[in-house]
Amino acid sequence: MTIQKQLSKTRTNLLHQIIVLVLFLSVSANAQIQRTEPPFWYAGMHNPELQIMFYGKNIAQNDVSVSNNVPIKNIQKTENPNYVFVTIDTKNIPASELVFSFSKNKKVAFTKKYALKQRRENSALRRSFDASDMMYLIMPDRFANGNPKNDSEKSVTEKANRQLPNGRHGGDIDGIINNLDYLEKLGVTALWSTPLCEDNDAVNSYHGYAQSDVYKIDPRYGTNEDYLRLSTELKKRNMKLVKDYVTNHWGAEHWMYKDLPTYDWVHQFPGYSQSNYRMTTQFDSNASAIDTKNCMDGWFVPSMPDLNQSNPLVLNYLIQNAIWWIEYADLDGFRVDTYSYNDKVGIAKWTKAITDEYPYFNIVGEVWMHDQAQMSYWQKDSPISAIQSYNSYLPSVMDFTLHDAFGSVFNEDNASWNDGMIKVYDNFTNDFLYANTNNLLTFAENHDTGRFNQNYKNDFKKYQMAMTLLATVRGIPQLYYGSEIGMAGDKGKGDADIRQDFPGGWQGDQNNAFSKEGRTKQQSNYFDFTSKLFQWRKTNEVVHFGKMTHYLPENNVYIYFRHNDKQAVMVVINNSAEAKTIKTNRFQENIKDSKTAKDILSGKAIDLTSEITLDGKSVLVLELEK
Amino acid sequence: MTIQKQLSKTRTNLLHQIIVLVLFLSVSANAQIQRTEPPFWYAGMHNPELQIMFYGKNIAQNDVSVSNNVPIKNIQKTENPNYVFVTIDTKNIPASELVFSFSKNKKVAFTKKYALKQRRENSALRRSFDASDMMYLIMPDRFANGNPKNDSEKSVTEKANRQLPNGRHGGDIDGIINNLDYLEKLGVTALWSTPLCEDNDAVNSYHGYAQSDVYKIDPRYGTNEDYLRLSTELKKRNMKLVKDYVTNHWGAEHWMYKDLPTYDWVHQFPGYSQSNYRMTTQFDSNASAIDTKNCMDGWFVPSMPDLNQSNPLVLNYLIQNAIWWIEYADLDGFRVDTYSYNDKVGIAKWTKAITDEYPYFNIVGEVWMHDQAQMSYWQKDSPISAIQSYNSYLPSVMDFTLHDAFGSVFNEDNASWNDGMIKVYDNFTNDFLYANTNNLLTFAENHDTGRFNQNYKNDFKKYQMAMTLLATVRGIPQLYYGSEIGMAGDKGKGDADIRQDFPGGWQGDQNNAFSKEGRTKQQSNYFDFTSKLFQWRKTNEVVHFGKMTHYLPENNVYIYFRHNDKQAVMVVINNSAEAKTIKTNRFQENIKDSKTAKDILSGKAIDLTSEITLDGKSVLVLELEK
Repeated sequence: MTIQKQLSKTRTNLLHQIIVLVLFLSVSANAQIQRTEPPFWYAGMHNPELQIMFYGKNIAQNDVSVSNNVPIKNIQKTENPNYVFVTIDTKNIPASELVFSFSKNKKVAFTKKYALKQRRENSALRRSFDASDMMYLIMPDRFANGNPKNDSEKSVTEKANRQLPNGRHGGDIDGIINNLDYLEKLGVTALWSTPLCEDNDAVNSYHGYAQSDVYKIDPRYGTNEDYLRLSTELKKRNMKLVKDYVTNHWGAEHWMYKDLPTYDWVHQFPGYSQSNYRMTTQFDSNASAIDTKNCMDGWFVPSMPDLNQSNPLVLNYLIQNAIWWIEYADLDGFRVDTYSYNDKVGIAKWTKAITDEYPYFNIVGEVWMHDQAQMSYWQKDSPISAIQSYNSYLPSVMDFTLHDAFGSVFNEDNASWNDGMIKVYDNFTNDFLYANTNNLLTFAENHDTGRFNQNYKNDFKKYQMAMTLLATVRGIPQLYYGSEIGMAGDKGKGDADIRQDFPGGWQGDQNNAFSKEGRTKQQSNYFDFTSKLFQWRKTNEVVHFGKMTHYLPENNVYIYFRHNDKQAVMVVINNSAEAKTIKTNRFQENIKDSKTAKDILSGKAIDLTSEITLDGKSVLVLELEK
Repeated sequence: MTIQKQLSKTRTNLLHQIIVLVLFLSVSANAQIQRTEPPFWYAGMHNPELQIMFYGKNIAQNDVSVSNNVPIKNIQKTENPNYVFVTIDTKNIPASELVFSFSKNKKVAFTKKYALKQRRENSALRRSFDASDMMYLIMPDRFANGNPKNDSEKSVTEKANRQLPNGRHGGDIDGIINNLDYLEKLGVTALWSTPLCEDNDAVNSYHGYAQSDVYKIDPRYGTNEDYLRLSTELKKRNMKLVKDYVTNHWGAEHWMYKDLPTYDWVHQFPGYSQSNYRMTTQFDSNASAIDTKNCMDGWFVPSMPDLNQSNPLVLNYLIQNAIWWIEYADLDGFRVDTYSYNDKVGIAKWTKAITDEYPYFNIVGEVWMHDQAQMSYWQKDSPISAIQSYNSYLPSVMDFTLHDAFGSVFNEDNASWNDGMIKVYDNFTNDFLYANTNNLLTFAENHDTGRFNQNYKNDFKKYQMAMTLLATVRGIPQLYYGSEIGMAGDKGKGDADIRQDFPGGWQGDQNNAFSKEGRTKQQSNYFDFTSKLFQWRKTNEVVHFGKMTHYLPENNVYIYFRHNDKQAVMVVINNSAEAKTIKTNRFQENIKDSKTAKDILSGKAIDLTSEITLDGKSVLVLELEK
């Protein structure tokens, strides 16, 4: 080798080393930012302020600026140098790519591109679910495994094991998409899935309520793009997507919990402090301060750090995350978990921020109480919360007292002052306490309760009574996956028993209840009845928004009407074990001039002029004819 | 006999006959008026209009005029010629005797004197019962027989027979007056007696709710003057008299029911129509018109015609009768029977008319419901009834849900989510639904419920817990006669069993519980505890009107405070069967700087700085010391 060659080689090496160094520096510059949340945003939002959280090792040492003459309203640093919160004003900023520059000693150390995207047309005015819908609740891990390849994923801890009742079974977004035709045939018009974001708990992660990343679909369910595809596929069928949003807590595996932006990002106590779960403390004028705080700030379970919505950074993070999902996945509504455990003032701000952004967006909160006044308290414009000058801005709450009545009533063959159909009737006598009864979610069961078919030992007649009620009383009926084919499950045995796999969702399942051919006789009975009822409901505005008039049950027979200027439907529920004959003259104020009606279940014509007889434990859904 | 003598005799006879005729005519003229109601009235009332009902055979054939230049505002005749209702304006008319003239063909046929009396000084501003009181409920037929001579009376049908459980036992007003010292020693400050007006039913008349004359004390109890004397004797002891008023119905023996002024004076149906008793129909926005009407207008029982308060004549009659009793007997309050069965609009007018006349007069309504929002509905200025723009104007309602809790809680030694002291705690969590919780009547039992000591098998510790609660939670405590000496009674055996004679009230009673010497050991235990508690309560404003702060029960121990700027009382109820130790630091927000307290029951000093231990099924009532 000549000297020249050696020099040349050295020079080449040196050049190579410089290049490597430059590359390294560049890589290192990008590495400064490990997370940017929201990862992108949208131009033209109602609230022009956007607070972007940048996360990276000692990132707070930098000054921050932004391109495109976008005004920076605020740069907030916390006690943790790895976070900086930058608030920009996006007013009049068109969809574009911004560049954030992070500088030290007036020199740009690194930059970060940030997209302001175009919104869908009329995004702000999107409609949402309402009483015209039938909402179907699924637990995605237990519904259908459309993509067996993603059952276990490297990036998350818990791997698939269908043998474990509380393990991951492999259900996923593809499984849901594959069965949308089934849902459509059933009469479903809105889909509520329990959380699909990443839950990286080592065990029991399948329920998804201990989220570890709220900007990312859990890889075992699919990708963010898959979730968007689910939304698109639903819309093709005029079906709506309702996201299960959790404001109250994250999982202990959440990346931010491992490096908290602020000490008070979550509620912290000396030692673990569990919520007392007594939600009455939130309005009880006699409550002690310590009990009220304990309910709100205590943790739901040790694996779920309780978020502090009274910290504006936390609140903003949750608001923007929610809005981001609406825009990104074109959502049609939220179901909010443990709504009444949240900081009362904070959760109202969260709800108002979202409904300010989307005035027609519906949000139903889990408000698990047993008193109508207490449930009403949490609904928007409630006359009850107005007593305390509080407004949650939550459009919809769940009708848990109707669920309570459903728990025993169909076994009560003999009516008494308190037993039998009077329990169902009584639930509606307090409707005047609500701001909006059409926006109550009515249900016989959900993923946290005993399954109806278990409680009633798969007595099909009782199922028919319950479904008929749900389909025809005021409110938004919600069904729980699998009950429509007779699935049962015992809450007493643990949650896994009420969250079993839908038969046919897994390759090799011997029974495939998704297909007409695959269903057993019993499954077909359940499915066909449910489908007939809810397909009929789908197009009958009078049972969506018509006024309800009900009559005191007599002999355990409950009769009510849904009616408007054009139509009237008469529903007869005979909860007695014996056949009953009803004299129709008692119902003159609703029957009016109608002489006949059609039972939409049997198709039979019914004479309304004198008496109606129906079997024990049976129902009639009568369209009045003029 | 000479002709002259004969002529003279004839003349004398003729004169005599003329005199007899004139006398007869005059008597006959008076006989035209069989009833005048109100029988007299008072000058200077807030509402100057007075509607006097004159009743007599064909009285409506006459024109009516009045003396003293009193303006007649209205003369109302009805389909029944035996009634005339004359409305006069008493404004600026001093106390005086008026004369009403009844004329036919412009000639005065007969006249009727009518007194406008002088009111007591400050009558309109009379004070009433409130949370500073302890109200004692008696059934007068069963309390004490002070005058055995009036046990049976000619003018009324049912005669005394103490052997019959549902018969008349002879208790009377004198019996009450004789035992006022006993009541005073017990700590009673207000007396509610079930109705004392005439009830002329042939059987079961002892309860008095089927009134046959609402202007007259039943002669078996005494006279109107005796009732006034009771009021006066009570006032000497700073005790208040509360009349049990029945607006909803009269007895079928009421003289007016036998000759109705108008067909619609009572609610009439083709055939007997019983109330459905479903008071929820009164506010249920889904209720059918027929059910609502049925509840309100149906009869309570066949022997009690349902009054139609929507008829202004009836309403006026009831208003004036109520006011007449207040003025006449110097009353301190009303308890209104079956308040929520009345015509909703009518009863509100009745209540408002009375409280317009007496702004500080308290009226407690029997509103027997099982839901705080529903009970709140009937209280004056309720935020609940405001939803429907309804105001009953009723100042006070009964806390029936607390009574419900008392029904089982003291047997629940082991606390669970729903059992044990949480039931009592939960009752108060809805206090914010009421317009005024200090004006709720709290009770463990009354004349229509099972007796507490029966339900709890005379377990003295349970009695102590219940009484301590009544004496120290918000509201007006009401006791039921005899329980303070341990009396029991089983509602299951019929009403008579819960309405037994007070021992010592009858001559020859072997056990006289009215006197210290006469009481058994057990009776003394009950009496002494009750007396100590309520004598202490009498002078402690902080437990009358102080704010209440309560703490979630832990281990079945319920702790709450009554406090104001000056004082604080801490109440500890250990409903567990085991002794419990309480760490006091949890109650810092109420204990504040106090280091010690005095238990008003044992007199012992209690250290508040660390822990308090108390026995199973026991209570502490601690006055905090500064």
